[in-house]
Amino acid sequence: MPGSSGTTQSMKKTIGHRGVETTTGETTYKKTTSSALKGAIQLGITHTVGSLSQKAERDVLMQDFVVVESIFFPSEGSNLTPAHHYSDFRFKTYAPIAFRYFRELFGIRPDDYLYSLCNDSLIELSNPGASGSLFYVSSDDEFIIKTVQHKEAEFLQKLLPGYFMNINQNKRTLLPKFYGLYCVQAGGKNIRIVVMNNLLPRIIPMHLKYDLKGSTYKRRASPKEREKAVPIHKDLDFIEDLPDGLLLEADNYNALCKTIQRDCLLLQSFKIMDYSLLMGIHNMDQGAVTPDQRRPQVQKSLYCTAMESIQGEARGKGALDSEDHMGGIPSRNAKGERLLIYIGIIDILQSYRFIKKLEHSWKALVHDGDTVSVHRPGFYADRFQQFMCNTRRHGQRDKNTFSSSTADVVAAGVHIRFLNAAPSSGVQLGRPDLVPRTPPVGENPSDYEANLSTSSLGSTGVGATSPPIR
Amino acid sequence: MPGSSGTTQSMKKTIGHRGVETTTGETTYKKTTSSALKGAIQLGITHTVGSLSQKAERDVLMQDFVVVESIFFPSEGSNLTPAHHYSDFRFKTYAPIAFRYFRELFGIRPDDYLYSLCNDSLIELSNPGASGSLFYVSSDDEFIIKTVQHKEAEFLQKLLPGYFMNINQNKRTLLPKFYGLYCVQAGGKNIRIVVMNNLLPRIIPMHLKYDLKGSTYKRRASPKEREKAVPIHKDLDFIEDLPDGLLLEADNYNALCKTIQRDCLLLQSFKIMDYSLLMGIHNMDQGAVTPDQRRPQVQKSLYCTAMESIQGEARGKGALDSEDHMGGIPSRNAKGERLLIYIGIIDILQSYRFIKKLEHSWKALVHDGDTVSVHRPGFYADRFQQFMCNTRRHGQRDKNTFSSSTADVVAAGVHIRFLNAAPSSGVQLGRPDLVPRTPPVGENPSDYEANLSTSSLGSTGVGATSPPIR
Repeated sequence: MPGSSGTTQSMKKTIGHRGVETTTGETTYKKTTSSALKGAIQLGITHTVGSLSQKAERDVLMQDFVVVESIFFPSEGSNLTPAHHYSDFRFKTYAPIAFRYFRELFGIRPDDYLYSLCNDSLIELSNPGASGSLFYVSSDDEFIIKTVQHKEAEFLQKLLPGYFMNINQNKRTLLPKFYGLYCVQAGGKNIRIVVMNNLLPRIIPMHLKYDLKGSTYKRRASPKEREKAVPIHKDLDFIEDLPDGLLLEADNYNALCKTIQRDCLLLQSFKIMDYSLLMGIHNMDQGAVTPDQRRPQVQKSLYCTAMESIQGEARGKGALDSEDHMGGIPSRNAKGERLLIYIGIIDILQSYRFIKKLEHSWKALVHDGDTVSVHRPGFYADRFQQFMCNTRRHGQRDKNTFSSSTADVVAAGVHIRFLNAAPSSGVQLGRPDLVPRTPPVGENPSDYEANLSTSSLGSTGVGATSPPIR
Repeated sequence: MPGSSGTTQSMKKTIGHRGVETTTGETTYKKTTSSALKGAIQLGITHTVGSLSQKAERDVLMQDFVVVESIFFPSEGSNLTPAHHYSDFRFKTYAPIAFRYFRELFGIRPDDYLYSLCNDSLIELSNPGASGSLFYVSSDDEFIIKTVQHKEAEFLQKLLPGYFMNINQNKRTLLPKFYGLYCVQAGGKNIRIVVMNNLLPRIIPMHLKYDLKGSTYKRRASPKEREKAVPIHKDLDFIEDLPDGLLLEADNYNALCKTIQRDCLLLQSFKIMDYSLLMGIHNMDQGAVTPDQRRPQVQKSLYCTAMESIQGEARGKGALDSEDHMGGIPSRNAKGERLLIYIGIIDILQSYRFIKKLEHSWKALVHDGDTVSVHRPGFYADRFQQFMCNTRRHGQRDKNTFSSSTADVVAAGVHIRFLNAAPSSGVQLGRPDLVPRTPPVGENPSDYEANLSTSSLGSTGVGATSPPIR
């Protein structure tokens, strides 16, 4: 796509490989314009999904994880490819059979995948973060396309067998759902992209957004980020904004903690660190979604909303559950306002390129390990879980919570609390046995009770007397 | 266990590591007596299953495949182990968490596993074959214990991730079900054993037994083998004994062929060759099992009889299916006699040690590739499938089959036929689209229709008008 790319002189505001062409204002990635990249992605995916549909289904084998298929798209077209307006490019599909299996596991039919990604235009996200990646979302809100670095793509390939094992044992996961890994090769550059589930549906207005790591070191949104309409805040901002945390129904709280626990065990086993919990909060009492917006279409993928990611079989409680939470997890803040929480674990590939660079560096030496976000994976996982799921500390104010007494809150109780990971200064109420701890792999994880080969995570019998939070 | 082992002088009839002590007549393996080996196995498994039950369940991770746990059993006992009558030994458990997962997947509860293997005595099989392995069966007929060589144990360890993938996609399989891999270390020797499902229940008298590879080169039972009460015959014997093959109900035939096809694809992907289909035939018209013998107990493991290994959801046909076939696949021979077939693919680890030795050797050069049983894995898999599942050749006599005309046989039809793998000399009747072919991995397997991620293999709609064969 040299024809569509600018020169270094005409670019500004480069973050990593992402830049902006000064003449048109269009985003670029490795000097390729966003529109050319989108075009190549859509041509490539159309071809690869089509050719895959001609292959009969069969079991996924170990070899399938290392397969790379490649097809050349000359701009004048070929026997196999249509003519197009961009420069010549090559499109590579990684592990096509394996990703087809993953998509099938998540209930995504090939023509739905094709339709979502290639029939309508891809929408570029305007707030892509500091990673230097470009993000697109499909018009129907189903899929995110993200550019990834060479090392990240390599790491994902290595991760595939373990990822296969994980989603087979555990379809309910907050980890990214990977639906495809591709590479657009043009003008001597490789642009690798990954297709994933979309955590924050654009149709739901998010009143607050957080990127949480469980660390407090420098974990505050920059002044520049704060200027945005809905900034992505960080851990310290969360503690300030929501000192009493978020209150979840007991079943959901338990399911959420178990899911985080299982996910962290996998991340730890792959020595992954530096991942975040991305959280969007929709406040139903501040701005409701108009009814006709609520169900723009039939949802295509399974297990992909926040609620589906954590909840097992124990979902229905009869009529009470019939309310549509649009995939969000119902919750309340300390004021008693009704919230919908949208969450997922992100950036599990990125840490890889940081590990060698930053581990055991001056940061780890100079600062207390508890507050440096790059640390050994077990510690990272523990702190992450501690931060996400902890019971409230004794003696804290609770006059503003929706229940009138501390005892009630604890009974109804079981919050998702975002406490500082410093040693607990008080008594832990609620169910200390539910406080997750990641067991070292291979050791005796005596208090680790994730239920193997079943996804019924929700019903541990806590809070049988508590009213549902809605 | 040096105390229980003889010297080379006192041994005779050694096959591989298996020998017989002349003074007592007892079998030995690597100079350890069978009784000492059984004792060590039972002590070891009792300990390892017990210690595993104290570990909470969690997801299996990639790392779990390479874990080896080791415990020392001094004869005087220790804090962790009881005293015993044998010499000191060490017991190793390979990939304990992974095998626990496999056992769970096959519905084997820890205490049933323990009870079957360790509560009663293990029975040594008197006809262990030419491999030099020792075989034990648990008294309840559930499990086989087999000694394996160092290379085979290593190979199984390497196979575990792929095996995990396979049984997750495909619980219905004729491949061996591996429930455990252990090593008894004593007197400087390592005796590795694998615990598997038992294909031929002792309670069912087998009138014929075959070890089939799809090859005809030297595939005839030895004169010595023929002297035995129920010899294990080979391919050429089968063709002579049953020139018209075995007739199966269409659903079962289709399910069987699909299962063999999927299993062969996995074996091929691991470059495995030289495996066999072990077959036991019980002739219901020659000797019935007395009613009280038929159900000695509740069966513990799932998917482990021949019938369960091949049949998916499409099992029931109402009252007709209520007859108890004791896990066998109902079939008829050309005389119309009612048979029960017990089958499974065996020796998938052994080929490994032969590959380097025999491939491209004089055998492969001198003999036609079609008839040499050691050949490249794809060819081996193709020939194996062709031999096991093929429709009858046109013009063959069928006056003795249970149907009265060729047309009827084909309609009712769909046999399991064991034809010579030579190019078909006639028209293939039946459903040529069901003749399995293993697609080369990564190519377009256009006639390969195994249904991914579902085990409903049985109902392809063939023979809707045919009477069930019983």
